[in-house]
Amino acid sequence: MEKKGIGKIAILLALTSGDQDNIKKYYESKNYVVYKGQAGSMDPKKIVAAIETAASREDIIRENYHEEHALYHAIIEALSGYCRGQVMLGEVLRSAGLTFTIVRGTLIEDDRSSGNWIAVVLYGQIGSPRRGFEHEAIGMGIQPI
Amino acid sequence: MEKKGIGKIAILLALTSGDQDNIKKYYESKNYVVYKGQAGSMDPKKIVAAIETAASREDIIRENYHEEHALYHAIIEALSGYCRGQVMLGEVLRSAGLTFTIVRGTLIEDDRSSGNWIAVVLYGQIGSPRRGFEHEAIGMGIQPI
Amino acid sequence: MEKKGIGKIAILLALTSGDQDNIKKYYESKNYVVYKGQAGSMDPKKIVAAIETAASREDIIRENYHEEHALYHAIIEALSGYCRGQVMLGEVLRSAGLTFTIVRGTLIEDDRSSGNWIAVVLYGQIGSPRRGFEHEAIGMGIQPI
Amino acid sequence: MEKKGIGKIAILLALTSGDQDNIKKYYESKNYVVYKGQAGSMDPKKIVAAIETAASREDIIRENYHEEHALYHAIIEALSGYCRGQVMLGEVLRSAGLTFTIVRGTLIEDDRSSGNWIAVVLYGQIGSPRRGFEHEAIGMGIQPI
Amino acid sequence: MEKKGIGKIAILLALTSGDQDNIKKYYESKNYVVYKGQAGSMDPKKIVAAIETAASREDIIRENYHEEHALYHAIIEALSGYCRGQVMLGEVLRSAGLTFTIVRGTLIEDDRSSGNWIAVVLYGQIGSPRRGFEHEAIGMGIQPI
Amino acid sequence: MEKKGIGKIAILLALTSGDQDNIKKYYESKNYVVYKGQAGSMDPKKIVAAIETAASREDIIRENYHEEHALYHAIIEALSGYCRGQVMLGEVLRSAGLTFTIVRGTLIEDDRSSGNWIAVVLYGQIGSPRRGFEHEAIGMGIQPI
Repeated sequence: MEKKGIGKIAILLALTSGDQDNIKKYYESKNYVVYKGQAGSMDPKKIVAAIETAASREDIIRENYHEEHALYHAIIEALSGYCRGQVMLGEVLRSAGLTFTIVRGTLIEDDRSSGNWIAVVLYGQIGSPRRGFEHEAIGMGIQPI
Repeated sequence: MEKKGIGKIAILLALTSGDQDNIKKYYESKNYVVYKGQAGSMDPKKIVAAIETAASREDIIRENYHEEHALYHAIIEALSGYCRGQVMLGEVLRSAGLTFTIVRGTLIEDDRSSGNWIAVVLYGQIGSPRRGFEHEAIGMGIQPI
Repeated sequence: MEKKGIGKIAILLALTSGDQDNIKKYYESKNYVVYKGQAGSMDPKKIVAAIETAASREDIIRENYHEEHALYHAIIEALSGYCRGQVMLGEVLRSAGLTFTIVRGTLIEDDRSSGNWIAVVLYGQIGSPRRGFEHEAIGMGIQPI
Repeated sequence: MEKKGIGKIAILLALTSGDQDNIKKYYESKNYVVYKGQAGSMDPKKIVAAIETAASREDIIRENYHEEHALYHAIIEALSGYCRGQVMLGEVLRSAGLTFTIVRGTLIEDDRSSGNWIAVVLYGQIGSPRRGFEHEAIGMGIQPI
Repeated sequence: MEKKGIGKIAILLALTSGDQDNIKKYYESKNYVVYKGQAGSMDPKKIVAAIETAASREDIIRENYHEEHALYHAIIEALSGYCRGQVMLGEVLRSAGLTFTIVRGTLIEDDRSSGNWIAVVLYGQIGSPRRGFEHEAIGMGIQPI
Repeated sequence: MEKKGIGKIAILLALTSGDQDNIKKYYESKNYVVYKGQAGSMDPKKIVAAIETAASREDIIRENYHEEHALYHAIIEALSGYCRGQVMLGEVLRSAGLTFTIVRGTLIEDDRSSGNWIAVVLYGQIGSPRRGFEHEAIGMGIQPI
């Protein structure tokens, strides 16, 4: 059976609606820490803050700069992918409403030699601040931790 | 039951390994055109060419500039998300090996009023041109067509 | 006689000062919709909003996401050209005062086979928020619609 | 009567087809140096080289680094506007065929106090390396010299 | 003995803590104008403003657009190097606390033929708005003046 | 006495010409690994390769992806600062000739609690591939390792 990468785990978790307890338990049994939350804003810093706050509160990262730096870069890479180029929302009159997932564990499922990594995925809508004038976007950042 | 967006359909198709006939048939029954291929290179233009060639050969787009332009911009946005910022592979000594999906149909499943759109998803590995020194990446572009 | 592209029509209209009724009438007789307005700000979103508002009010685009998306991308491309790289004004203490034009019609004058497109041109001054400390800039975005 | 900026002079010269002797003579009588050439490539460095070579050969700039630097930055800004973001052509399978103009003189017509500046304008087609699959683009860079 | 470039002078001045009177006097004896200041903000425009204000107040540049433009571009290039890519601080929840230096004089020490240039260096910390969660950054811009 | 950051150590080492044995020994006595090399090219990937090769050959990083990823990102950030924006050399007809330094150790001198980091500094000339038509540039990337 195929061994998933940490990114695929984070993407699938972000895309799954409804009950995710089984998915979470499955990956927790493989020593992954997994978290899923929501954020929506025209202001990129509020999305960064929502993810950083969740990661601290849920003890996904330790309170040192080494780990915070890894998380921060994963978030910025995810935002850059989500925005497809320049990180910019309200500045150009667009808004994002999204689900984010944070996954921490080995780069490849069941492969301890691949080391510890953190993946951040953003999946949701981006568009005009007007109902229905928006389409989907996705972004992912992966960093060693 | 939740109505999927065209992006989620393209992402799930890109992430699913093994037999995809059922998924494809399901979405084709909803008037989506779906295609999945592979590309790998240190040269972004080869990835662009692989996707454009598949789209023409499989009649996913009509042979006019209007449609080719929509596809091209979807590809570039997907590449930009995949590279997380500047589109650049071999220039900075990195390589991509990826699965791409092209999906054409309504922006939202079963919602004809949302019009015709095209989604391109790239999902795979990015990294050093050296086995095992790479991690996952994803990028998606969506354009009206 | 040379057939103009939609972009040249939009640029010439943006650069022409004084009475433009003749130019407008001439292109309207060739089934172009043409509009010219002014915007000035240190805030890129106000420039985006001014153009989107004009396009809606003047019925240049239909009120659906398909057309709004085409207009939006044309505006962002024009802004990106105007800023020459990163879209950014007040954030780096500069300001823009500009004329914008929106033109909708065939990609090439009198060539129906080229399909319907929309061009947005921004032409004006960019610089320090201080009289005389500014120079000209131009940006254009063209999208199928 | 309206006083033109150096940018408008360069844009109008780039857009005018047919005989330009009168325009050139008019601006030369106002102490502008004006030049118009052609370049086409999938390789941005060939476009840079074509403009730099013309500027040297025609004595538009003096052979020192001070002036070459001003010209170079004007070219790169013009290319950045033409490409609308990242400067990139063949790397993403697109090509440019364009007219360039170089104008050197006062920032504002007949206003010596505005100092000496150089403007570079690129106007032409950008698109797929396939006839008819391309649209217009414009870019301009202005630097003190 | 090695002849320093204007950039090295500006970097060394930015990195030197404690008394700098001797360094300043030494370079002033070689016809350089040198200035060192501090700025800290989550807002890039405040950093731009701090440097522009210092340059005007200390008569490092003359009050004309020609010279202001050279200074402005040197600042933006320095900020771009400091941010390593997109110029962006608070927008993505990060902050900068830095020393800046402005040096004006010949491109190469004791080489009048190299002409007059201006160098701006930013050196300091960048990171989370939280003590200790930051690392060093440097950026430099050099322009003919 | 002031405690230096890892970045300042790497910058000073890059800027110092002549004998550096004393500087290297001093920082090695504080558990830093320090290395200095040269690279010159119009091709960014050759600069990346020169630094990666040196880091492997000198055992500055361990042969695993975790550490190689940290080094790679530090190099790319340094290149991005050096190029001030888009990473691009020969593509736009410019060339770089530079000294690079790699420093590995604590983020702050004598402060073990700050963890292990790697700093890459590039300092040298950037410009036209023509003697004397170039000026200095600097770029630095810092990553946890």
